[in-house]
Amino acid sequence: MGMTIEQLAKRIGATVHGDGGGVVDRCTGLEQAGSSDVSFLANRKYNKLLASSGAGAVIVSPTDVQQAPDRTLLVADDPYFAFRQAVVVLHGFREHPVPISGSGCEAVIDPTAVIGKDCTVYPMSYIAAGAKIGDRCVIYPFCFVGPDAVVGDDCVLFANVTVYDRCELGNRVMLHAGCVIGQDGFGYATHEGEHCKIPQVGNAVVEDDVEMGACCVVDRATVGSTRIGHGTKFSDLVAIGHGANIGPYNLLVAQVGIGGSSETGRYVVVGGQVGVAGHLKIGDMAKIAAKAGVADDLPGGGEYGGQPAQPFNQTKRGFVAMTKLPEMVQEFRKLQKRVAELEKQLESVAAVRSGE
Amino acid sequence: MGMTIEQLAKRIGATVHGDGGGVVDRCTGLEQAGSSDVSFLANRKYNKLLASSGAGAVIVSPTDVQQAPDRTLLVADDPYFAFRQAVVVLHGFREHPVPISGSGCEAVIDPTAVIGKDCTVYPMSYIAAGAKIGDRCVIYPFCFVGPDAVVGDDCVLFANVTVYDRCELGNRVMLHAGCVIGQDGFGYATHEGEHCKIPQVGNAVVEDDVEMGACCVVDRATVGSTRIGHGTKFSDLVAIGHGANIGPYNLLVAQVGIGGSSETGRYVVVGGQVGVAGHLKIGDMAKIAAKAGVADDLPGGGEYGGQPAQPFNQTKRGFVAMTKLPEMVQEFRKLQKRVAELEKQLESVAAVRSGE
Amino acid sequence: MGMTIEQLAKRIGATVHGDGGGVVDRCTGLEQAGSSDVSFLANRKYNKLLASSGAGAVIVSPTDVQQAPDRTLLVADDPYFAFRQAVVVLHGFREHPVPISGSGCEAVIDPTAVIGKDCTVYPMSYIAAGAKIGDRCVIYPFCFVGPDAVVGDDCVLFANVTVYDRCELGNRVMLHAGCVIGQDGFGYATHEGEHCKIPQVGNAVVEDDVEMGACCVVDRATVGSTRIGHGTKFSDLVAIGHGANIGPYNLLVAQVGIGGSSETGRYVVVGGQVGVAGHLKIGDMAKIAAKAGVADDLPGGGEYGGQPAQPFNQTKRGFVAMTKLPEMVQEFRKLQKRVAELEKQLESVAAVRSGE
Repeated sequence: MGMTIEQLAKRIGATVHGDGGGVVDRCTGLEQAGSSDVSFLANRKYNKLLASSGAGAVIVSPTDVQQAPDRTLLVADDPYFAFRQAVVVLHGFREHPVPISGSGCEAVIDPTAVIGKDCTVYPMSYIAAGAKIGDRCVIYPFCFVGPDAVVGDDCVLFANVTVYDRCELGNRVMLHAGCVIGQDGFGYATHEGEHCKIPQVGNAVVEDDVEMGACCVVDRATVGSTRIGHGTKFSDLVAIGHGANIGPYNLLVAQVGIGGSSETGRYVVVGGQVGVAGHLKIGDMAKIAAKAGVADDLPGGGEYGGQPAQPFNQTKRGFVAMTKLPEMVQEFRKLQKRVAELEKQLESVAAVRSGE
Repeated sequence: MGMTIEQLAKRIGATVHGDGGGVVDRCTGLEQAGSSDVSFLANRKYNKLLASSGAGAVIVSPTDVQQAPDRTLLVADDPYFAFRQAVVVLHGFREHPVPISGSGCEAVIDPTAVIGKDCTVYPMSYIAAGAKIGDRCVIYPFCFVGPDAVVGDDCVLFANVTVYDRCELGNRVMLHAGCVIGQDGFGYATHEGEHCKIPQVGNAVVEDDVEMGACCVVDRATVGSTRIGHGTKFSDLVAIGHGANIGPYNLLVAQVGIGGSSETGRYVVVGGQVGVAGHLKIGDMAKIAAKAGVADDLPGGGEYGGQPAQPFNQTKRGFVAMTKLPEMVQEFRKLQKRVAELEKQLESVAAVRSGE
Repeated sequence: MGMTIEQLAKRIGATVHGDGGGVVDRCTGLEQAGSSDVSFLANRKYNKLLASSGAGAVIVSPTDVQQAPDRTLLVADDPYFAFRQAVVVLHGFREHPVPISGSGCEAVIDPTAVIGKDCTVYPMSYIAAGAKIGDRCVIYPFCFVGPDAVVGDDCVLFANVTVYDRCELGNRVMLHAGCVIGQDGFGYATHEGEHCKIPQVGNAVVEDDVEMGACCVVDRATVGSTRIGHGTKFSDLVAIGHGANIGPYNLLVAQVGIGGSSETGRYVVVGGQVGVAGHLKIGDMAKIAAKAGVADDLPGGGEYGGQPAQPFNQTKRGFVAMTKLPEMVQEFRKLQKRVAELEKQLESVAAVRSGE
């Protein structure tokens, strides 16, 4: 897979600054990189590593060239994307291994299930009655695809994934190990002291090009569908409540929880461990900082943070004010005394005057 | 499953307002509903959808009839419970499919395990030595029921559920995919720099009528039992520490964590992403708002929120005060100047006087 | 397993206070304990239970002997560790049951995989091509060990554990049910509106003596390795981002999330539901209180809490100040009025004077 820096530059849409003749065959971090490695600088935090890195070439933005004019650099307007391209070129995507055959424990597939062409279904997965799997899917061991569930083309279900009955995955959906799609939503009507289960008769729909990290869980809707919009990506341990509607191209960081019936627009970014209550609307392009607790609708375009979540500037001002608070409490007590003293003095001034 | 609105009304304990002759066969949301659908209004937030909904009938409370006097309404004192009944009548609960047979990968069941009558044990589950499964249980693929574990009657274990050795489930327990009952608690005694594992020799007990969402995990106790009380319901990704004692009829929303040895009373409601530290007691009927961090015992009956959790009114007042804080800091600085100015002026007044 | 209190004392390095002749055979809590049980007092909170407990012997620290001079006590400098020793002596560690044989559903093991000696590989696990398993490992059903993954000696993988391709576990690693090691990290370069996946070509390395609770997930690195240091212990549902480097002997409580590329030192303790943003450094011995949100590097040795995390004393002062805040806002308004009043009065004094 080795190639010259010059060759790589062409493949990733970068221009070479310095000598493009060196051969590189691997992408890695600035600190670990050696002469046959390509690294990148996309986070200012690592600027100081640029000079000392042993990397054969470093991908930088045009404005960062001046920081290491003597190095071989690959200059790209979007260095992070260029690095991504370099990883694709030099390493490629994971190749799924050929399943072990002849074990006598092949996948258990209902005769009424339909499996598309060129699928790789590992031993010890279970495809229930009426399920439909598209073409070129990869289904690892211990996956359960429930009755009448639909999986599109080119999907990957890693080990131990569960897709409940009647749920639907679009094309190119990738679910990492332990994901669960379509478990019953948290719906109970409390009656005479019992929490009576409301049958969850809806389903969950995961649209095209969604990827989820490990152990993400998406409730099925009570009625209708819980929906994850196309191109949306989840990190790990994300929980989506029943009837929620996550828009397209969202990014949900690890351990986010979205309450039932809530909706997000397009390109919403939700930081780690954020919680969004139920029945809310988050507008397009909203960005919610890690750990925020969203208790009201949030207009699109803004940045939000805090508990309850507010516009981020406000949250920040609040935090700053709060760090000053203990001191201010003390100063306030002093000021109260000074005012009391003034009042006393002024009274005595007035008393003297009236005594005049 | 279709029936007239009149017929449905009888089944769900509602009275018809308007024409009860239409036929309905499905429950759905106000926005999606058509003329053969039943919908409901239980959240004020959706009041405005009532007039425009295409639903054949809408379940409402008596006080909401006036909002749409021209519609066909199903009037019930508890519209949410009536809707639940309608879902049960028109849709029913999930029917578990007949397992695929003849795959050669049947469930692996130890000869010393006891399986009750009329159970559905799917291929590729594992029932270890000494385990006891009650009658009419459904055990999906990739479930592990450990040595000497006990599962009561009418339980459902969805795919990829793990029940550790000696743990016990009551009757009618439903565990969604990925749940883990009885893993070792987080117990280490740090000694000469090593975190020495304390054997977790207790177990976990899940009482009757408990339901857990996907990927909930319940530690086994160090000694004795971790206990989840009857009728309690968890949403997804809930974590219960070793030796905790969750009372009956609790509702724990997604991503809640309860620390080891903590106890909750009856009918406690715990909002999403709440954390409760270890060794605490939460009283009966306490309600804890989403994201709260509970660091002390909480008396029963109250509503709590915030980090650390306090009575909710206090938390709210604190939040309101905090939003005003940045402004107040500025005003405070001004006030300090004004007081300093007053002091100066008063001094000069006094000086003039003493100079008289 | 029964033995006299005297015998037990020798085994656990304690001295007997009172009559060491009684026979004990079980460890349990103070409240549940009977005459053949050993209990312990390590948390002041339970002091009052000491007198009333029915335990045959109670392990206490030297300073606590005076609290129950009439009881049979086992006195140890570190009562918690002594209790741990007692649990080991009287109960021992879990014995893994002999796998069910003859089911026809044996483990599926690639011919190129290497399994060490004396391993227990349960039916229905999957060991992919090139994987290496050390000696004396126990691999429960429904575990997936990916291509070229390495598992050291004496490891235990409970049910439904997934280890991705090329990931490495050291010796004596214990992964509870549902853990996932090495799923793809959350890496996308957004380009022309698409979140383009960056192939995650690194791996995840879990060093010796690490234990993880149920459903913990560790991302593989984009390049290089995500690393969990030796002797570190996780509770349940912990999420580790790609490229993170968790130091040795850390303790991470349930539902902690550590962002990508962040590093922790040695003996760091991270409370439940803490979130640490990406690209941060946490120093040796730092302690982070439950629910904190870490947004900046934290020096070693300190205790931190709050959102964003600050030195714990500051956080506490902030909380105290905040509880006083609503009241202070009111007092502040009053003070403003008093100052305005003073200004008016002083003006009139001055006016009178100038009128003199």
